[in-house]
Amino acid sequence: MAYNRLFEIDEWKVKTTVLDKEERRLQESLTSIGNGYMGMRGNFEEAYSGDHHRGSYIGGVWYPDKTRVGWWKNGYPEYFGKVINTMNFIQIDILIDGVKVDLYTDNVSDFELELDMQRGILKRSYIVEKEGKKVQVAVERFVSLDQKELCAIKIEVTSLSDDIRVEMVPALDGNVTNEDSNYEEKFWLPVSYGQNQLVIETKPNDFGIEQFTVGAVMSNHAVNLEKTTESSTEMHISQTYAGQLAAGEKAVMEKRIVITTSRDYDKEDVADKAQEISKMVDQLPFEELRMRHESLWIERWKKADIVIGGDAAAQQGIRFNLFQLFSTYYGEDERLNIGPKGFTGEKYGGATYWDTEAYAVPLYLALADPEVTENLLQYRHNQLPQAEHNARQQGLKGALYPMVTFTGVECHNEWEITFEEIHRNGAMAYAIYNYTNYTGDQTYLKDKGLDVLVGISRFWADRVHYNRFKDQYMMHGVTGPNEYENNINNNWYTNKIAAWTLQYTLESLELAAEKKESLHVSAEEMEKWSEIIQKMYYPYDEERDVFVQHDTFLDKDLRPVSELDPKELPLNQNWSWDKILRSPFIKQADVLQGMYFFRDQFTKKEIARNFDFYEPMTVHESSLSPSIHAILAADLGKMDKAVELYERTARLDLDNYNNDTEDGLHITSMTGSWLTIVEGFAGMQTVNGQLSFRPLLPENWTNYAFHINYRGRLLNISVTNEKVAITLIEGEALEVSVYNETILLETVYTCEVQTAQPVSINS
Amino acid sequence: MAYNRLFEIDEWKVKTTVLDKEERRLQESLTSIGNGYMGMRGNFEEAYSGDHHRGSYIGGVWYPDKTRVGWWKNGYPEYFGKVINTMNFIQIDILIDGVKVDLYTDNVSDFELELDMQRGILKRSYIVEKEGKKVQVAVERFVSLDQKELCAIKIEVTSLSDDIRVEMVPALDGNVTNEDSNYEEKFWLPVSYGQNQLVIETKPNDFGIEQFTVGAVMSNHAVNLEKTTESSTEMHISQTYAGQLAAGEKAVMEKRIVITTSRDYDKEDVADKAQEISKMVDQLPFEELRMRHESLWIERWKKADIVIGGDAAAQQGIRFNLFQLFSTYYGEDERLNIGPKGFTGEKYGGATYWDTEAYAVPLYLALADPEVTENLLQYRHNQLPQAEHNARQQGLKGALYPMVTFTGVECHNEWEITFEEIHRNGAMAYAIYNYTNYTGDQTYLKDKGLDVLVGISRFWADRVHYNRFKDQYMMHGVTGPNEYENNINNNWYTNKIAAWTLQYTLESLELAAEKKESLHVSAEEMEKWSEIIQKMYYPYDEERDVFVQHDTFLDKDLRPVSELDPKELPLNQNWSWDKILRSPFIKQADVLQGMYFFRDQFTKKEIARNFDFYEPMTVHESSLSPSIHAILAADLGKMDKAVELYERTARLDLDNYNNDTEDGLHITSMTGSWLTIVEGFAGMQTVNGQLSFRPLLPENWTNYAFHINYRGRLLNISVTNEKVAITLIEGEALEVSVYNETILLETVYTCEVQTAQPVSINS
Repeated sequence: MAYNRLFEIDEWKVKTTVLDKEERRLQESLTSIGNGYMGMRGNFEEAYSGDHHRGSYIGGVWYPDKTRVGWWKNGYPEYFGKVINTMNFIQIDILIDGVKVDLYTDNVSDFELELDMQRGILKRSYIVEKEGKKVQVAVERFVSLDQKELCAIKIEVTSLSDDIRVEMVPALDGNVTNEDSNYEEKFWLPVSYGQNQLVIETKPNDFGIEQFTVGAVMSNHAVNLEKTTESSTEMHISQTYAGQLAAGEKAVMEKRIVITTSRDYDKEDVADKAQEISKMVDQLPFEELRMRHESLWIERWKKADIVIGGDAAAQQGIRFNLFQLFSTYYGEDERLNIGPKGFTGEKYGGATYWDTEAYAVPLYLALADPEVTENLLQYRHNQLPQAEHNARQQGLKGALYPMVTFTGVECHNEWEITFEEIHRNGAMAYAIYNYTNYTGDQTYLKDKGLDVLVGISRFWADRVHYNRFKDQYMMHGVTGPNEYENNINNNWYTNKIAAWTLQYTLESLELAAEKKESLHVSAEEMEKWSEIIQKMYYPYDEERDVFVQHDTFLDKDLRPVSELDPKELPLNQNWSWDKILRSPFIKQADVLQGMYFFRDQFTKKEIARNFDFYEPMTVHESSLSPSIHAILAADLGKMDKAVELYERTARLDLDNYNNDTEDGLHITSMTGSWLTIVEGFAGMQTVNGQLSFRPLLPENWTNYAFHINYRGRLLNISVTNEKVAITLIEGEALEVSVYNETILLETVYTCEVQTAQPVSINS
Repeated sequence: MAYNRLFEIDEWKVKTTVLDKEERRLQESLTSIGNGYMGMRGNFEEAYSGDHHRGSYIGGVWYPDKTRVGWWKNGYPEYFGKVINTMNFIQIDILIDGVKVDLYTDNVSDFELELDMQRGILKRSYIVEKEGKKVQVAVERFVSLDQKELCAIKIEVTSLSDDIRVEMVPALDGNVTNEDSNYEEKFWLPVSYGQNQLVIETKPNDFGIEQFTVGAVMSNHAVNLEKTTESSTEMHISQTYAGQLAAGEKAVMEKRIVITTSRDYDKEDVADKAQEISKMVDQLPFEELRMRHESLWIERWKKADIVIGGDAAAQQGIRFNLFQLFSTYYGEDERLNIGPKGFTGEKYGGATYWDTEAYAVPLYLALADPEVTENLLQYRHNQLPQAEHNARQQGLKGALYPMVTFTGVECHNEWEITFEEIHRNGAMAYAIYNYTNYTGDQTYLKDKGLDVLVGISRFWADRVHYNRFKDQYMMHGVTGPNEYENNINNNWYTNKIAAWTLQYTLESLELAAEKKESLHVSAEEMEKWSEIIQKMYYPYDEERDVFVQHDTFLDKDLRPVSELDPKELPLNQNWSWDKILRSPFIKQADVLQGMYFFRDQFTKKEIARNFDFYEPMTVHESSLSPSIHAILAADLGKMDKAVELYERTARLDLDNYNNDTEDGLHITSMTGSWLTIVEGFAGMQTVNGQLSFRPLLPENWTNYAFHINYRGRLLNISVTNEKVAITLIEGEALEVSVYNETILLETVYTCEVQTAQPVSINS
């Protein structure tokens, strides 16, 4: 597997001493920071004239972009919701003897770049020679966990030569564009500006989507520099500070930026509120602001950190993933969700994908209070009317949750995805099941979950069609999780999760009979659902005894990935889309996604047969792929495979496996490494209210340990080569199953059992 | 079938006395005029503030528009080639007592609008009451067949009140946009302007496509009006003429516009050349210019007119189609082709579709000299390197002709079309066969045709894949002619035409052995082609004894169109694309397209079985559909069906059957009515050098007659209820087959046989 590792292995840091001008975009992506409210790529404050991608983003601030290309058809979304690059508020130019520092063209030495994941601080330092003079520059930046509107930057410039005139020019710049805009059109219009503030708003649109106002206030504190000039125009304000430094003297600039938006305040009040908050944070020393921020990061790690012994790269990988995941979402704002690029890029549109339900819910269930996950479910419940709208757009009944959205209305622009990749609807239902199953609490299911389940079931019942020649129900024209095929018929996974949804809805309706009435679910309708469950068609191959991905999959030129020239990988960068679609190569778990979700329904032999058939044809070019396969591999005792795939998921971005991290990080797949360790290596499952583990230790690890929350308890699971220790740290006594043996964990009690060795199950 | 007929039935005219403000766009489309070089929709010269679509177009002048929407994949075209709306050069505002006439808001009476198809003149007249005064206005316009760069307009304003100040303001306006632009961006930049001239050019692009310069010179001749003012800015020039009219007095404005482009002259010379031509045409009276133009139209009709007795609507339909087809293309410029909207709209991009080869070639073969058709073939031969580029873009060998193009490079923007609807490649090969078969001349085939055939064969040989389980060659991931399904496997038609191409190429190589060498066609390669032909997989259903459209077609919820609520038609306007794709309903001939092309390979029974299976599920929502079905229906003696479908194809636009003619006319399908009469009703075929007829007379027609050119002869075929008369007007003696009997036609000789009655062949 080709990879590209820019940063050093370090358990808590992402660091390098190389200013990589060839891979600047990749460096930027990997040093992104965020606080759930806003964030930005690892751009420099100073000028950098080389190829790079400047991007700062605010959660929930977006623009509905036209996608009309002359071929719009009924049922297509009207706009593509774009994550938009917002005001550049970190900018601080440095001038040496009147000439601007440009880190691309200047002579830079002693470069150091470091993202401290434990504390959420991005640091840099370097020496630059300019006009025959040398200065040392040190920069640090954070977006505060303590005060979400605050981004704080400190730059220290130390003279290494005699008598240097140093200027620093902190600025706010509204003249930004999106990387992927069609006509370099700007999405921002000026609203107002002042000496230290700039207010901009997104331009009007034709789709009835609100315009967002963003206000920024900067407050600059300088040491050894005097303010000399100010400049304010409608899209750009700046303040120039200058000073003369003798050798060894240091100039300091602290820039605090407060960002407010019309999501939180009336449009008219945005600037005043930013000023208010700015005054507040201005009263505290920089170090105090930083300390408050750092302590909250340390707090998060206490609850969530996974410790891995013996493999520093794996350790760094899991921490990087959790760091970036928490930087994107920590459940504070129920209007937000987990966007695919978080605050690290703008390549994908929308704020919400099915990734949340399929991959993030299990993690938040285990690492946070149930309310955080309930918020994620509530988000979808709130958008049920929009999901019904999406179904109506296709001429169908019930609710179709969107592939990509900000509001609940579908806003992705590929038909083969929007109305074909409908298995996502099943993931919405599965998340409700997952939550209910994990928490053991049926309240949400009965109160609200059923609204969603009935909507989705009605969609499935209308979307299938009856094949009278075969007396079976079929589902044509879908795209499965394997997006390397489109518009296929009878995707096994989609048919499976559709029938499962109908079944789960029928069962759940028995728990809340009053919902039948309020949702007008008739006996006939339920009978119809039962008939569909009964007569659902599942493609199956007798000869190979495997489920078939879809109707004509076996007609392909079937061959394993190992037969490909490694130079052809990743396929999506080396092959035409035509070749990819016709090839047997699988982007991500498809049949196996279903076997993962419903692994208690299949024997290990069955899973092994399908794993051994499909995994060799899988290129894992979705960031969501390796983890699911790793979990199944671990379950089948194929630890080598599990570990190989763990490494891909844990270090997908750090090692740029998919060769596209320069566009931003794969945020939603960052749960994958956690899932692999907890559900894969440790084999955690909850079936019928029974929490169970089947811990295995990867060969090159000495040990690992993690915490989980489970029904009011806090547990620690620690695995070494000799023993598995499960400690009930908080909460009432609990029965857990370890290696299929039930153990009663008393309060504050550690049980220890001998660690098992993997036994490989083959097909 | 719902239809919307705006114009009166008239054998030679498209006329109405209604100014239809609700359907102004449709009126505009239907009164378009053109001369192969340029043309425009039936816009008014005067102001019209209501909804309408102003559009003037110049052949071969286009713009490569970005289509990036964030999801570009390898093999996707880089740009979408757009037909662009050019300078508005017909504009002439009329002012009455200083107030501008606006035909949308003003009180208009005695309105008459008439397109004279025999002479190629668009005329209008009306009375308008304005400021309490009345004037009568008469307008005529033509784009000259005699001088391609000339558009001439004459407006007469007659006062019906006392003492009216009349002003007329002829103008040239470069401030135009395209209807379907994404951001209302303008594609035109100013170059220069003068008192009576305006030069503009298309803006630069990122794709290496030339910028086009367009120069316009206007020369205005007024009677009873004096020039008062002139205005010139970089994108708009105008001249104001004014006069005072007593009751009954008439003011006249003749505006001659000469349009030149950088396609014909150096960019720098465009304006001077326009001035030169303008001076030339300025020396002739308007009536002389018009007469020269009209006589050329009359000449065209002499060679091409089809006379239909007893059905004025059918008569009008065929003439309208030939008129608009010839207005678009008459073979003068081998760099041009037959664009889907001609000069009547801009909805589709590109200048060339497979429609040319599949539907237009037979018409031009019969109605024009062989050189015209050879030019159409030469166009593709010239673009062979670009076709090879298109194949390489997909990672494939050989040549893939584009779905849509200006240059030969694919420029359409839907993957399901561009690299899936590859059956078009077969149509390129078929056109070479068609030309060779019809003319009996193998020169083109041997000299150039084989280059194209080998390129296409190499593509097919690489595009199929070998299914080792079934020992057959298959073709996955295609879109057949039925675009209401995408990304299907083993489309019978595509597999059929692919194998046929290989066969025809192999046979043709035997005629020109030296091509094997020059094109490096090895014995192994030919063996491989033979193997593919041998082992090609053709989906077939034993039970129904029909060819199957594609692998899973029979799994659909099969039902006839007659079961649909007529309100749901046309499906493409009433159903979501999702429902359409999953439905059994067929847009246009698919299996039947193949049976049409190769109808000598199948028994009538076979054709009947497939026709009876597929036609009832066909919605004919492609303008290309009815004619192919009508021909087959006539061949099967199903004259009622043939006539029903003829009416749809002949009056598709006149009666707006597809409810989209407001966007422009369906130019490439206008051959359909000719094909239906000649190949359908008259049953003309050429098999192995034998020209044959099987004439039938539609029940409600009294007679019909048409000419054809055939291998140096000019024939007239006349059919009445009693007899079929075939007259050899020019050329050497010829054997023809009529109703399967061979007749020797001596020079200037009419053979007469009794007209047969249809005998229906059922499946």
